[in-house]
Amino acid sequence: MDMKSETINDILLQSREAFLVYRNRTGDEKAAFLEAIAKSIEDLGDPLIRTAMGETNLPEARLQGERGRTTNQLRQFAAMVKEGSWVEARIDTAIPDRQPLPKPDMRKMMVPLGPVVVFGASNFPFAYSTAGVDTASALAAGCTVVLKAHPAHPQTSALVAGAIEKAIRTCGEHPGVFQHVTDSSFEAGRMLVQHPMTKGVGFTGSFSGGKALYDFAASRQEPIPVFAEMGSINPVFILPGALKVRGEKVAEMYAASITQGVGQFCTNPGLLLSLKGADLDSFTKQLADRIRAIAPGTMLHPGIAENFVRNRGKALKEKGVTLVAESATAPQSNQAIPTIASVEAETFTKNHNLLEEVFGPYSLLVGARSQAELLAALDVIPGQLTATIIGEENELKEYSEFIARVTDRVGRVIVNGVPTGVEVCPAMHHGGPFPATTDSRFTSVGIDAAKRWVRPVSFQNFPHDLLPAELQDQNPLGIWRLVNNNWTK
Amino acid sequence: MDMKSETINDILLQSREAFLVYRNRTGDEKAAFLEAIAKSIEDLGDPLIRTAMGETNLPEARLQGERGRTTNQLRQFAAMVKEGSWVEARIDTAIPDRQPLPKPDMRKMMVPLGPVVVFGASNFPFAYSTAGVDTASALAAGCTVVLKAHPAHPQTSALVAGAIEKAIRTCGEHPGVFQHVTDSSFEAGRMLVQHPMTKGVGFTGSFSGGKALYDFAASRQEPIPVFAEMGSINPVFILPGALKVRGEKVAEMYAASITQGVGQFCTNPGLLLSLKGADLDSFTKQLADRIRAIAPGTMLHPGIAENFVRNRGKALKEKGVTLVAESATAPQSNQAIPTIASVEAETFTKNHNLLEEVFGPYSLLVGARSQAELLAALDVIPGQLTATIIGEENELKEYSEFIARVTDRVGRVIVNGVPTGVEVCPAMHHGGPFPATTDSRFTSVGIDAAKRWVRPVSFQNFPHDLLPAELQDQNPLGIWRLVNNNWTK
Repeated sequence: MDMKSETINDILLQSREAFLVYRNRTGDEKAAFLEAIAKSIEDLGDPLIRTAMGETNLPEARLQGERGRTTNQLRQFAAMVKEGSWVEARIDTAIPDRQPLPKPDMRKMMVPLGPVVVFGASNFPFAYSTAGVDTASALAAGCTVVLKAHPAHPQTSALVAGAIEKAIRTCGEHPGVFQHVTDSSFEAGRMLVQHPMTKGVGFTGSFSGGKALYDFAASRQEPIPVFAEMGSINPVFILPGALKVRGEKVAEMYAASITQGVGQFCTNPGLLLSLKGADLDSFTKQLADRIRAIAPGTMLHPGIAENFVRNRGKALKEKGVTLVAESATAPQSNQAIPTIASVEAETFTKNHNLLEEVFGPYSLLVGARSQAELLAALDVIPGQLTATIIGEENELKEYSEFIARVTDRVGRVIVNGVPTGVEVCPAMHHGGPFPATTDSRFTSVGIDAAKRWVRPVSFQNFPHDLLPAELQDQNPLGIWRLVNNNWTK
Repeated sequence: MDMKSETINDILLQSREAFLVYRNRTGDEKAAFLEAIAKSIEDLGDPLIRTAMGETNLPEARLQGERGRTTNQLRQFAAMVKEGSWVEARIDTAIPDRQPLPKPDMRKMMVPLGPVVVFGASNFPFAYSTAGVDTASALAAGCTVVLKAHPAHPQTSALVAGAIEKAIRTCGEHPGVFQHVTDSSFEAGRMLVQHPMTKGVGFTGSFSGGKALYDFAASRQEPIPVFAEMGSINPVFILPGALKVRGEKVAEMYAASITQGVGQFCTNPGLLLSLKGADLDSFTKQLADRIRAIAPGTMLHPGIAENFVRNRGKALKEKGVTLVAESATAPQSNQAIPTIASVEAETFTKNHNLLEEVFGPYSLLVGARSQAELLAALDVIPGQLTATIIGEENELKEYSEFIARVTDRVGRVIVNGVPTGVEVCPAMHHGGPFPATTDSRFTSVGIDAAKRWVRPVSFQNFPHDLLPAELQDQNPLGIWRLVNNNWTK
């Protein structure tokens, strides 16, 4: 064992040891811990925001908002475990005199998987990084966390990790409950995922990164679940009625959505599809005017900026792709220039390269000559986080079968809105069929994100005082349970 | 494309076409269909039982019981979709004047994945085969099914498939909703799993079979979930107090459990662990006496019987393994001889070969010299469907940390019972950490089995009349929903 694999082995053994203690924490204890983390992050105050500004080029207001989202998430998970119904308790009581065989007493609830490895994301230094939703949901579930810091914001990550460690001391938790790994090598990532003690993986980032982790996990002797959210081009279908009635308003809304946060969101709309005609021409002109007026923005780090230049260049060189408009202001170093290109639906449908994400403020306008061409274009688009339909009330009804077909390949369908701006609430699903994520059955936003880190266990004929409180007769925690097929509290 | 791959392509295209229609069925419609299948299977009457008896060597009473379980499962899923709450509806209503940003209207529910491939199991010709729990749960979820018949009972499978096809006609469903594939080649299995239209796989059988399907699915361009239940050795820990007080009763119970159904259950107890001493000696003697008195039984098919002979022979040749007792009656062709062997815990802990399942009426007694040795033995046992603890009330409390450790690696823990006999009810979890299954987060028994075939979708700002009934304001279906964080009907 070389030095590095020895270190990683120690970290996972420590995580496992901590898990054996932490998995037994009550909902109230876990809630207090999550709330202490939130408080501890807030206590870092302005220096945290300054550090993140320096490392990510993100503006102060955005980072303040993101910090609020992060502490809010931690408190939502705290509320979830305090309330307690999330464990999906089911009780079927015994029928000792049932014929031909007695029915045993069966009780079931969710238990945590074990140590989880979380990879910080570059585009959300707080909300999807060190104390982000993967960490918060895993800790809420009763798992321990090994966090691999994103190399683009090491100091921000260290500050937040320090806040978590402070909460660990305040709450008297085992130090192995959360561990911060700063080794940014590919090899360290592989070893973390392939260590036998690791029982789950959370990742937000590129397709190549997420798919590599999935393959590492699937090729283990014991395969483990990987929840990798790998981005999306988030198609937007603009129906003809809406284009006619309020094309200008849609152009305004989308110029803002395409360029928001320098386009560095996994929900950025990278594809706008519509029927060709005079209305699409006016819309294109209006969108182009607005894009020209938006100044380039500085990206998160030089690597992302280089990728944007390369991928945009490649996209614009594809056969039949025309540059429609770009910002009138020349980009400075590490900046991305807002860009709109266009292509015929017929060409789009034949060229799979056009389905690749250009991460940044770039969108491709696809013009179809008929509904059949629009449908053919939809049919080549692989799994996505979101799709959006812009339409007038009557035409939405006409397109209801089309909308069902759209729904079949995405995790969220938005009507008359933009995909950017992900509301953190129980009804939010942030996920989608492959290649948007590696497991369409789970979300990485909202309290259901905790479901990724648990599995059910049945307790058969247990002595009553050995049962977890969640499954005891008197329902001491007052949670919702399915008891003999009836939902009850 | 050769003939076979062309046929399989046609089948999956047909399944996808049917899915586009079937996914829109209401709960009531799906319930009527599932009930029609149950009725149609019952209508097959005695000839179905006779055919299965001829193909599986299973006795009439067992097959009648299993048919009852199968139609009961179908009706439980029918009741589930009729009631409707299983879709996990969540609604967060809009707050248009929220500061700094308006809150959109968000609604979420489960939708079906798409066409599912199900492999029939040899040891349950009804309950885990053609119209078994995988098929029933997938149809309940709104998925279409391609069923690969198990080659050990082709006529039984064809009869049940005919019953499903009759229900399809009765209910006016698309014929592609269920398709029966009788090609038993390995290659056909691979092609079914790797076809791009396939969105999920259900399997019950051997580790090598299940793991091969998992690997096929994980290496697809679009990886898909595989739910493979691959067997288990189901350790039983007999604590010293129980051994002393009621060793004879435990021996009686376990002689029956080990040999039930010629040991051909995935929950068969293949491992009994206890502390050495006079009480274990008496227990061993009592168990041996009972095993000697039990006649060999005919196995499902010659392949399984050959495997039993080979694997039993291999196990008995392992270093330190002693034959304790076998049936006093010599086995006939295709019969398995009830067998008990023993080994020291110290030897057991060092030899991973002893963890391999001997499918049939075989169990290995492991004697530990101390609690530490018992714990060490537990720690080498990989993921299991079940574990059982036999203990007196007081000692169960003493062993509570040990029981927690047992729970950490299994899907179901039984106290003072036997693992065989899986109750079909909502609180039953039939699954467990790898290698018991390929996904510990899902069950293959009980209504929660439908969760394997669905994924969530969020509907944002949808016009009210385009929303599925499950998510409409008035709750027309009267289902349980989480509305603005409150559970309500």
